[in-house]
Amino acid sequence: MAKAAFIGLGVMGGPMAGHLARAGHDVAVYNRTEEKARNWAQKHKGRTYSSVATAAEGADIVFSCVGNDRDLREVFDAASSTMRKGSIFVDHTTASAEIARELAAKAEARGLGFLDAPVSGGQAGAEAGKLTVMAGGEPSWFAEAQPVMAAYAANMTLIGPAGSGQLAKMVNQICIAGVVQGLAEGLHFAKRADLDVEKVIAAISKGAARSWQMENRWKTMNEGRFDFGFAVDWMRKDLGLVLEEAERNGAKLDLTELVDSYYADVQNMGGKRWDTSSLIARLEKPRR
Amino acid sequence: MAKAAFIGLGVMGGPMAGHLARAGHDVAVYNRTEEKARNWAQKHKGRTYSSVATAAEGADIVFSCVGNDRDLREVFDAASSTMRKGSIFVDHTTASAEIARELAAKAEARGLGFLDAPVSGGQAGAEAGKLTVMAGGEPSWFAEAQPVMAAYAANMTLIGPAGSGQLAKMVNQICIAGVVQGLAEGLHFAKRADLDVEKVIAAISKGAARSWQMENRWKTMNEGRFDFGFAVDWMRKDLGLVLEEAERNGAKLDLTELVDSYYADVQNMGGKRWDTSSLIARLEKPRR
Repeated sequence: MAKAAFIGLGVMGGPMAGHLARAGHDVAVYNRTEEKARNWAQKHKGRTYSSVATAAEGADIVFSCVGNDRDLREVFDAASSTMRKGSIFVDHTTASAEIARELAAKAEARGLGFLDAPVSGGQAGAEAGKLTVMAGGEPSWFAEAQPVMAAYAANMTLIGPAGSGQLAKMVNQICIAGVVQGLAEGLHFAKRADLDVEKVIAAISKGAARSWQMENRWKTMNEGRFDFGFAVDWMRKDLGLVLEEAERNGAKLDLTELVDSYYADVQNMGGKRWDTSSLIARLEKPRR
Repeated sequence: MAKAAFIGLGVMGGPMAGHLARAGHDVAVYNRTEEKARNWAQKHKGRTYSSVATAAEGADIVFSCVGNDRDLREVFDAASSTMRKGSIFVDHTTASAEIARELAAKAEARGLGFLDAPVSGGQAGAEAGKLTVMAGGEPSWFAEAQPVMAAYAANMTLIGPAGSGQLAKMVNQICIAGVVQGLAEGLHFAKRADLDVEKVIAAISKGAARSWQMENRWKTMNEGRFDFGFAVDWMRKDLGLVLEEAERNGAKLDLTELVDSYYADVQNMGGKRWDTSSLIARLEKPRR
């Protein structure tokens, strides 16, 4: 069992750290809002610390799941100041590939391991302990982290060198953007055409139009329910990272850019916290 | 066993009629290019006719799978002139909902049944006898046609009244347009980012980005192979039907319209007969 620290107990980090504790690892936690850390520690009989540096001290492996590049850099700098040589920092934040490369280099200089390891599977996946991890970094560090991450991940893939985990997550979000907008237009059209949507989905969900989004979101999209799942605000953050990276590598992402602007429309409709599938809502706004 | 006629022995109709014959139905065929009909008849020991009217005469059920609304109207008018009262015309063409309604009304006036019954599953599905049928029309006619269509269809759904089959097929094509463009941008980005695409797909194809297109097309898209499958020309025909219908019902299909214009780009690149997944090719054109 590992001596672990987990920094950031949000909707993802909270349950992930919980699975680590349940699997028998010794888990120290830190969260910016102290109350969350106290609640977590009470529930999981874990130790809570008042700073990242003290939580990370003496750990074999330090996990982070925070908001953005800036938060991540702060957490890494604080943690790496007390981490022992040969220990490893695993970042589960969805962040830029650039910060992943920056921190991997800093870690190496300090004798630490680093993995950028964003996840997919959302809150439900975190709670069920069935997340997918896309990792970037050295194979030896990945091999070390894998058995510990197994507490909350069903699939773990080392994609390539530092930053590759973040880049793979970007590919994931690009694909989702296309699927969801296509599905939104399909359902919107079906309604306008007065079709029995359930029958249409039954007919088309076995063939070339099939997708996870169709199987898992058609019903709630059809009912206009979006009070769950992966929020539009977070998707816009992720697509922002995608579009910045595309600026650098020259990828031509017209659809992704367009769908990002559609998510901005949804935010303006009051849908900042709605599920990603709420793209259909902007199609169904009453017309003048 | 039914006395059947099959009009239109293209890449879809040919194998479909073949399955009918193999299932033991008595199949008369007609094809505009006579040679195809002769070849089919030789292979399946079937009867070939030199006109639609003579092929349809005395049949319990007449199937059509032709090019477009105009061809379909011609075939229906010829067939219905010799079909006996109480027999049924099943159209497998992907056509407009309007022509389906027009022909359903004509059929009723002549004491015939009519189903608009476009299929999905492509050439591979037709050859394997595993097509999906989306039908519009009266339940009693559907009940009659279903056991015969079972020769080549794995899934058959009656969506609703005349035209509903065509409208459901349109929903299918709208969803596919979004999925394929998203996947194309995702793979394009992955290449620009120097990722190991196989590993990325292994990581993301289990989650919320999963789709039939990802599972079945990522590899050929990644290799730039498009010499198979559902052709860009046909997809443009189908999206044309979608956009015309959307004009009528007021659906807002910005992505679909955009992807249709991307398919026009692919046509201009010489990709008229390429598979639908060739959207990635226009992203990878050499830059100036």
